[in-house]
Amino acid sequence: MFSGTQFSIYPMTSDFVPAIMRAIGALDTYTDIRRQTDDLSTLLVGPPDRVVQAMRDAFVAVAKGGPHVVLSATLSRGCPGESDDPICSAPALPAPGPGEDAAAVATARFAPGPAAGVPVSAQISLYPLGTEAHMVRIGGCIDFLKAVGVYAGSKHFCSKLTGDAADVFAAIERAWLDFAPMHAHVVLTVTVSANSPSLAR
Amino acid sequence: MFSGTQFSIYPMTSDFVPAIMRAIGALDTYTDIRRQTDDLSTLLVGPPDRVVQAMRDAFVAVAKGGPHVVLSATLSRGCPGESDDPICSAPALPAPGPGEDAAAVATARFAPGPAAGVPVSAQISLYPLGTEAHMVRIGGCIDFLKAVGVYAGSKHFCSKLTGDAADVFAAIERAWLDFAPMHAHVVLTVTVSANSPSLAR
Repeated sequence: MFSGTQFSIYPMTSDFVPAIMRAIGALDTYTDIRRQTDDLSTLLVGPPDRVVQAMRDAFVAVAKGGPHVVLSATLSRGCPGESDDPICSAPALPAPGPGEDAAAVATARFAPGPAAGVPVSAQISLYPLGTEAHMVRIGGCIDFLKAVGVYAGSKHFCSKLTGDAADVFAAIERAWLDFAPMHAHVVLTVTVSANSPSLAR
Repeated sequence: MFSGTQFSIYPMTSDFVPAIMRAIGALDTYTDIRRQTDDLSTLLVGPPDRVVQAMRDAFVAVAKGGPHVVLSATLSRGCPGESDDPICSAPALPAPGPGEDAAAVATARFAPGPAAGVPVSAQISLYPLGTEAHMVRIGGCIDFLKAVGVYAGSKHFCSKLTGDAADVFAAIERAWLDFAPMHAHVVLTVTVSANSPSLAR
């Protein structure tokens, strides 16, 4: 199995370099995740649930009391073009099996932990690949987002989410993991925004 | 048919609001495209080739002589969850048919026009949905990116591109249009960056 993300942090401030370095610094405690940064994004490779939690901490490190900042990420697992990597151990909780109600399972597993104190807007898109059943899986995921209270409405091509960063990233984690079999190729794209002046108007 | 994008412009400057407004202003000449902006992104709905060209102009309006700026976009066409919209007329050139070499067709159609004078780094991912043949189509697209000289290497989960903005956006246009049938559901995600201090080191 291979799982990880390419993610970027965009702090809307002329002091963006130290803000980005603060985000990267927040990853230091994730010693079970491999990372690599270039001019466009930071790659994280590791257990899929931990990868989402690491991204959350990187984002919160900049967003809390900080400038308008956006995180953009592509999460991918099970790509047939990638070799298995032992660092990507299976997540603690396997994907629901055939016949299980994935939305109900994901809702039961949703465990955001303590609030981060950072209200965010987000939009996410789930892409179950290599299957003709992708729209059914996307529909199940939307049911889950509604059930856990982060769903803020449908937009063309994505679902909008709002809530505390802890809730939204916890929902992202389950959305990525619970709506396709463990061996399947699944991509989730994510945009998370905090401190936008558009919302203060 | 329904085609469009959700795209965002992230100018890494404390003066980000006027920069974003300059990007949005560049869309005014695209009277054949419908648009809608919220706190996260701007939706463009229209003919798919024109949508890419509009995004290019919005990005160049900020990037040329401007701050470090990133465009992040999700392009989608043919989503079965969207109703047909007459504003989304078919592109001037239909997708290659079965048996045609899509990479060769896309390469012949690649027409970037005059250079924008803005060197960019980009990464893109193509997601042909609702098909078990997605990896074959992605492989064809990578062959095309190499053939037209914008391919800068493989990264996990995406392909890196470099070149003048005119070349890179022209390649994005063909990558989105030429590697799946016209009725298919195809998503392309794009990150385009200009003026990054990482490259000046």
